[in-house]
Amino acid sequence: MMSIDNPVAEMTLDECWELLRDHEFGRLAYRVVDEVHLVPINYVAAGGSGTDTLLMRTAPGNKLFAAALGSDVAFEIDWHDTERAWSVVVRGSLRRLEEDEQHRLDGDPHEPWVPTRKDEVVELVPVAVTGRRFGLRPGVTEED
Amino acid sequence: MMSIDNPVAEMTLDECWELLRDHEFGRLAYRVVDEVHLVPINYVAAGGSGTDTLLMRTAPGNKLFAAALGSDVAFEIDWHDTERAWSVVVRGSLRRLEEDEQHRLDGDPHEPWVPTRKDEVVELVPVAVTGRRFGLRPGVTEED
Repeated sequence: MMSIDNPVAEMTLDECWELLRDHEFGRLAYRVVDEVHLVPINYVAAGGSGTDTLLMRTAPGNKLFAAALGSDVAFEIDWHDTERAWSVVVRGSLRRLEEDEQHRLDGDPHEPWVPTRKDEVVELVPVAVTGRRFGLRPGVTEED
Repeated sequence: MMSIDNPVAEMTLDECWELLRDHEFGRLAYRVVDEVHLVPINYVAAGGSGTDTLLMRTAPGNKLFAAALGSDVAFEIDWHDTERAWSVVVRGSLRRLEEDEQHRLDGDPHEPWVPTRKDEVVELVPVAVTGRRFGLRPGVTEED
């Protein structure tokens, strides 16, 4: 439990995936040689228990994404109000979905938020999923 | 200008810094050997025009931050409602503030949101600051 003396609580894996399934906007961090890149991105949590992954659409020929394929990446979603915050982080690697796997997006009600062309789908295969809840000190004023 | 045919607009550097100064919560991506890490973090935009940097507090002995010192990192803030979104990304490197520089946080009205001990201050020295505004397709339903 969180308290004023213990303001950080780890989430269970189930809690993390529940939040990942309930949202569709996060940030993806990946590296290209020595550079670290960070981009906001829509995603869909897909797959059954034990094989959950994240699917993300990207533009064909996106050079940065291509360079990130197979390498270690991190993805994050978060939320806060003036009293509490949480953050879920998924670490893993990116792979491009083959054409015969595209059916995995069938029935996906989520369209990309920004209406630019994004015909490729990449999958984040998780290695580690962690989540934390934070109790905020009184007086936090920023609200989104 | 953004339009339905052109839903992404680049921000000017001034716009980016105005948003960075107006906010105090973002995400920091950094790498430790081959791993990419991504953490939510409070920050303060500090310094005058041309020498703007971001200051962040961290716990003494935070091994991950120590490993990230001097290496390439990326920091992001974003916002969205159901029609529009924006994201500002700062790329650069992290350095630890020396004791005789701590006065740079004097008068900073921002306390860390999570009341755990964070006595060290690291500075993100920017190499590149970029921002984009997005027009979202109708029907985006997630709201924070």
